[in-house]
Amino acid sequence: MNPKIGVVMGSTSDLGVMNGAFEMLDQFGIEYEKKVFSAHRTPVALDNWVTGARDRGIVAFIAAAGGAAHLAGVVAAHTTLPVIGVPIMSKALRGMDSLLATAQMPSGIPVATMAIDGAKNAAIFCAEILSVTDENLHRKLREFREEQERKILSTEI
Amino acid sequence: MNPKIGVVMGSTSDLGVMNGAFEMLDQFGIEYEKKVFSAHRTPVALDNWVTGARDRGIVAFIAAAGGAAHLAGVVAAHTTLPVIGVPIMSKALRGMDSLLATAQMPSGIPVATMAIDGAKNAAIFCAEILSVTDENLHRKLREFREEQERKILSTEI
Amino acid sequence: MNPKIGVVMGSTSDLGVMNGAFEMLDQFGIEYEKKVFSAHRTPVALDNWVTGARDRGIVAFIAAAGGAAHLAGVVAAHTTLPVIGVPIMSKALRGMDSLLATAQMPSGIPVATMAIDGAKNAAIFCAEILSVTDENLHRKLREFREEQERKILSTEI
Amino acid sequence: MNPKIGVVMGSTSDLGVMNGAFEMLDQFGIEYEKKVFSAHRTPVALDNWVTGARDRGIVAFIAAAGGAAHLAGVVAAHTTLPVIGVPIMSKALRGMDSLLATAQMPSGIPVATMAIDGAKNAAIFCAEILSVTDENLHRKLREFREEQERKILSTEI
Amino acid sequence: MNPKIGVVMGSTSDLGVMNGAFEMLDQFGIEYEKKVFSAHRTPVALDNWVTGARDRGIVAFIAAAGGAAHLAGVVAAHTTLPVIGVPIMSKALRGMDSLLATAQMPSGIPVATMAIDGAKNAAIFCAEILSVTDENLHRKLREFREEQERKILSTEI
Amino acid sequence: MNPKIGVVMGSTSDLGVMNGAFEMLDQFGIEYEKKVFSAHRTPVALDNWVTGARDRGIVAFIAAAGGAAHLAGVVAAHTTLPVIGVPIMSKALRGMDSLLATAQMPSGIPVATMAIDGAKNAAIFCAEILSVTDENLHRKLREFREEQERKILSTEI
Amino acid sequence: MNPKIGVVMGSTSDLGVMNGAFEMLDQFGIEYEKKVFSAHRTPVALDNWVTGARDRGIVAFIAAAGGAAHLAGVVAAHTTLPVIGVPIMSKALRGMDSLLATAQMPSGIPVATMAIDGAKNAAIFCAEILSVTDENLHRKLREFREEQERKILSTEI
Amino acid sequence: MNPKIGVVMGSTSDLGVMNGAFEMLDQFGIEYEKKVFSAHRTPVALDNWVTGARDRGIVAFIAAAGGAAHLAGVVAAHTTLPVIGVPIMSKALRGMDSLLATAQMPSGIPVATMAIDGAKNAAIFCAEILSVTDENLHRKLREFREEQERKILSTEI
Repeated sequence: MNPKIGVVMGSTSDLGVMNGAFEMLDQFGIEYEKKVFSAHRTPVALDNWVTGARDRGIVAFIAAAGGAAHLAGVVAAHTTLPVIGVPIMSKALRGMDSLLATAQMPSGIPVATMAIDGAKNAAIFCAEILSVTDENLHRKLREFREEQERKILSTEI
Repeated sequence: MNPKIGVVMGSTSDLGVMNGAFEMLDQFGIEYEKKVFSAHRTPVALDNWVTGARDRGIVAFIAAAGGAAHLAGVVAAHTTLPVIGVPIMSKALRGMDSLLATAQMPSGIPVATMAIDGAKNAAIFCAEILSVTDENLHRKLREFREEQERKILSTEI
Repeated sequence: MNPKIGVVMGSTSDLGVMNGAFEMLDQFGIEYEKKVFSAHRTPVALDNWVTGARDRGIVAFIAAAGGAAHLAGVVAAHTTLPVIGVPIMSKALRGMDSLLATAQMPSGIPVATMAIDGAKNAAIFCAEILSVTDENLHRKLREFREEQERKILSTEI
Repeated sequence: MNPKIGVVMGSTSDLGVMNGAFEMLDQFGIEYEKKVFSAHRTPVALDNWVTGARDRGIVAFIAAAGGAAHLAGVVAAHTTLPVIGVPIMSKALRGMDSLLATAQMPSGIPVATMAIDGAKNAAIFCAEILSVTDENLHRKLREFREEQERKILSTEI
Repeated sequence: MNPKIGVVMGSTSDLGVMNGAFEMLDQFGIEYEKKVFSAHRTPVALDNWVTGARDRGIVAFIAAAGGAAHLAGVVAAHTTLPVIGVPIMSKALRGMDSLLATAQMPSGIPVATMAIDGAKNAAIFCAEILSVTDENLHRKLREFREEQERKILSTEI
Repeated sequence: MNPKIGVVMGSTSDLGVMNGAFEMLDQFGIEYEKKVFSAHRTPVALDNWVTGARDRGIVAFIAAAGGAAHLAGVVAAHTTLPVIGVPIMSKALRGMDSLLATAQMPSGIPVATMAIDGAKNAAIFCAEILSVTDENLHRKLREFREEQERKILSTEI
Repeated sequence: MNPKIGVVMGSTSDLGVMNGAFEMLDQFGIEYEKKVFSAHRTPVALDNWVTGARDRGIVAFIAAAGGAAHLAGVVAAHTTLPVIGVPIMSKALRGMDSLLATAQMPSGIPVATMAIDGAKNAAIFCAEILSVTDENLHRKLREFREEQERKILSTEI
Repeated sequence: MNPKIGVVMGSTSDLGVMNGAFEMLDQFGIEYEKKVFSAHRTPVALDNWVTGARDRGIVAFIAAAGGAAHLAGVVAAHTTLPVIGVPIMSKALRGMDSLLATAQMPSGIPVATMAIDGAKNAAIFCAEILSVTDENLHRKLREFREEQERKILSTEI
């Protein structure tokens, strides 16, 4: 069974941002499940999905939510696999609430927080985790970095 | 069975603040259960406590937590009883994180948020809820307000 | 006399947001009065409306205002019924001022604060208060939660 | 009847800061009433005090409060005399809540907001208002400014 | 010589907001000078205008600026007449910088700060200052308040 | 060669907080290097340490810094291994600057950000990364969680 | 060899803002290099460019970046020439993150921070540095100030 | 006449922080004048000191102030020499007000802003400005950097 990333977002309105993660995971050839679950509106389904994840080959989670963004924390409460949180930009406070609610976790239950709307980086970070024991992915990450470097260095202004 | 308030805090370090709630509930003669549960570290015990609450006569919850304060939201996710959130002053950001993580709940799952460290007001608000159908409590609340008014008006400066 | 909710907003410009509350109250079959009163520009009319509320069957208030949002606090100062505050998103500071002015109430006078623009949740919270002694409303709230859950779980992404 | 300033604070705990105002008013020889009234806990007494103020010779108000600092706004709602607000430094948010709740008033009801804990400046500002028609006070203000200037310019570092 | 208000703004881009002040001053029949001066770009012209103001019949200033909004403070440094500051909403930080730079004045030099973009209230506050010794203006202010009250109370929603 | 964590902090003053990470790594039996390097004051030594890390068996980094906390970002710029950032509470802004400077990374270079002063969680997160392929560590993490749960559930208040 | 300014921005999306700097440098007749380098994505190229700068006649740097804006700090780490930082307005937090990440540098490595999007001022500040030993530039700066003054003073409103 | 730095602070209470600047200037052998002037309380003396500075050999300014920190901006308004601003940590808002009031300058009048309480860096930045044309100072700056690097690299933890 291939290692997989479990990606969950709190609302379909987060999909525009989260497509950035799916594209990166596809580019790195990393398999993933994608789900819409709400920490508050579908807690039971969320718990079930998280609890059974390891048996389905999931090795890390990406959880994206806005406002009082509890999603990543609730996922982390039900697993010891790495959980990466993506604070989604909220309407009123522009993601400051999402960032604090994702990052300021209590001692004992870490959530690895990305930038506001940092979906793409969440996927890259998953690739970095997997690359520790996957030489092929390590190579792809280096190529990605070099390509990214080349693109900037070839910019004419 | 008398109506009761279920009071939960995320850490024993919140006890100093939450004693303000217990004293007010005692003063109003309102019964309560008090528990330390963490949304992240004891999610199963918390869910069980919340889910069984209505059968134990609990009619409203007070949930107090600091930082990425998910506790009130997680309680609210498992009940349709009123949930009152008390954001606890955190060390680094002085409760701004706690306030946003408690108040900025998504549509569908309300948490009634008090001021930072507003434990006493959470208890008074529970009394107000119960007073809707409890004339005796209504009277006590009015006396409390009048006493509070008298105390200020008799101040000499 | 049926229990009713007293809904007040500080300005007609809040109506777009507050319609979310009216729709939820309608959906739950809860009666309400709706008014535009300003804490600062119509203090006397506001006081009169609040003071006479209990006699008109009002059992809880929803008060919505933006900026230096004193409306919910002023309502709370004149009643011992539960007051739910809705901080309205303001133009310059995007509701941070409204949130703090609504939530940071002094000890003795609670205001149950919802999220910025959280009008819908204010109505649901009123339903939760009433459901404590209204089994029918309790059932409706559970159905609302289940429907909300179903909607998310049936989402295909 | 001499013109007087009406000074009101929301709590006796504000007295330490507000003594700065009393000392300045004394120094300028301006008469004042000083009161502790809470916008929320003693609304009726506050309204009565404000409404009768003009007849007692009061020509401007200083109102000091912390947190969801509605005091100055509530005073302003009941008078057309100038109201000067002093946001008191709050424990958790260090006066940011007090400042926003005092300054962000809606159109139509101004509150002249001083710095956080700016009690002394509130008194000086009252002197400036009165100096418009009181040549003696005008002279005292100039002397105060000159004295203040001298003190700084004579500083050796 | 009639009493006049000196109105100064830091940039012509503030004119849209400041027209709210001019309309209110016109409505109250208060005379005024209006100028564009920058605390930083035209310091000498600003000083000259402020220093000579009292002799031209100016009895109070309104100063409006955004960002590191020093304008009101610089005006206040050169006069003992009342200075009312209007923090203009800035592009990046939406006026939080303007508000703090206007309100957080040091002891000795008060600036009476209005809400962000609170130009209209600055004008009303000037009317309130003048009304202390102008019974006619006092009457106009009360009518303005009553009209404002009527408008809200006649609102149908 | 055993997998190791590279821990770097920007200043010896961060050591008090970072000891929380060392204790957790010791408790999980995870080896680590610990260094004081500054992104700004020792950039060359830092780059050398990061660049050679993979060859020394390092599989993930923890980087802790305060203020304009660039350390984690600079580490991430020189490696494709996972980098976990710990924003250290700063004196003036209490870690808000550290949090934003650590979390708000540009697309392409992720830093997994912990809470302010969240050193212990950084170590646990490293254990979670390693546990993906280390069944023994997986077991230890579950025991840690259970122990943590037990401790809270056995609390008497 | 004429003195030159080295201008670097973190992304081509900063070009709109940075054109303000180029126009001012052109107006003052100051030569410059302009580059797009990312502190995180092209660290080696950036270091090379900075390290060789003095030999190419560069006497000061302007570095512009948004979000976790490390660019100016990384430039400063590799040179003892003056570095001027321009925090670029970011999407979610509107440049508050950029400002703090640019300004809150640790002791020993200064970055001279301009306002958010203050590209034009960065160029003027470079002119001011050069004017210390360039009488011609000193004259141009005075003319620029006078022209700027004239423009405001001739404004009719 | 040797080049000199003009150092000005708004209050003697800033002296504790500003000693960090004096020590660095002494260490680099840079001459300086030090003064206490307030932008608001001693505007005339401040203007005179700034206007005559160039003739006394001053080539750059350091201006330190807290709260509505206008000092650096007012200095910059009266000179075309480089002005470096040091936002002093304020009591209530911990320097956030000082930082914004110093950094958010309008286009045309730059202030080079250091970190909150960044007095030492202000002095180093002056050394960097002077080093552009002073090879001896350039050498001292490199030695300072190397010494600083050595100190960190020799740290044992």
